[in-house]
Amino acid sequence: METQRRPGGRSARVRDAVRQATLVEVTQRGYQGLTVENVAKRSGVHKTSIYRRWGSPEGLVADALELAAAEPIPIPDTGSLDGDLRAITEAVRAGFASPHGGAIGCAFILAGMQNPAAAAALQNFTAARRKQSVVVVERAVARGEVSESIDAEELIRFALAPIYYRIFVTHEPVTAADAVKAADAALTAARAGIL
Amino acid sequence: METQRRPGGRSARVRDAVRQATLVEVTQRGYQGLTVENVAKRSGVHKTSIYRRWGSPEGLVADALELAAAEPIPIPDTGSLDGDLRAITEAVRAGFASPHGGAIGCAFILAGMQNPAAAAALQNFTAARRKQSVVVVERAVARGEVSESIDAEELIRFALAPIYYRIFVTHEPVTAADAVKAADAALTAARAGIL
Repeated sequence: METQRRPGGRSARVRDAVRQATLVEVTQRGYQGLTVENVAKRSGVHKTSIYRRWGSPEGLVADALELAAAEPIPIPDTGSLDGDLRAITEAVRAGFASPHGGAIGCAFILAGMQNPAAAAALQNFTAARRKQSVVVVERAVARGEVSESIDAEELIRFALAPIYYRIFVTHEPVTAADAVKAADAALTAARAGIL
Repeated sequence: METQRRPGGRSARVRDAVRQATLVEVTQRGYQGLTVENVAKRSGVHKTSIYRRWGSPEGLVADALELAAAEPIPIPDTGSLDGDLRAITEAVRAGFASPHGGAIGCAFILAGMQNPAAAAALQNFTAARRKQSVVVVERAVARGEVSESIDAEELIRFALAPIYYRIFVTHEPVTAADAVKAADAALTAARAGIL
């Protein structure tokens, strides 16, 4: 009980409540509908406290991304780098295809395009996810499957890029076959020494 | 003189004036700052006419994209597919790096994420640009440089995707070397039969 009453504990609980409320609001109303007032109502945290600590909707989004970046994500271990990369691209494709994941993902990308603090948070978030994902390349190097000269982070970037491109730029559907192709193309380029 | 007074001629001039005003407004204020009032002021076209014909800022953006899609773009002809693809990715990189092109490009991408009509217009616009670009692949097939089984449009998509990914998702800088790598990776995957 004592520990729960420390300022740090309360502060962490407040932060988590505000973050959860931010995610729900962003999912339901989109980034443009995100207001400090609504996050205050949903979280039960007073709005003057939110303004003081987070400043704005952009600050709320940046903080939600910072917390998300620290979370461990499931990393596939299929036994081959081909399989692992395909699992990673498929997870991203399926995430954006789901109503919940799609809404949150779009809100974060929109926020990053509209606000420098959100852009910096998104840069950190994607870097953190990439650093978690490169273990699939490290394992493949250890198995002797690929050369250790491969730029593992670049391989992950190139595997994911075509999926985001279709969703946010060309507005074309992304099928499971597209996710496979994105993974295979990146790995082929990496094996050829381009990445 | 007679032809200029036809409704069609006047209508085309009005459309062009409104489109130019839309592009300037979007460049200066961003998509979120785009209003029918400001486009009316800048174009000299009455705002009730704009509301009647374009409906909203989204309609203005969609129409500007439709006109842009019809414009011919310079297609490189370096003598090799490697060189042509690198020129295409470098042109996109440099376009987004310029203040004017960057602002317009970002405004279009933002609009596409916020409005279904703008998304459809962006889908048509990117398809039109892709169809103009595939001539570099057709020439390479004619030269015997690559197999005719290559999916030319997919090759263009994959060459461009990593550039957009860095700009709009990871918010990382895009260097000339990144543009070269994106072109080379896509072509390597295409030559290997992945695309």
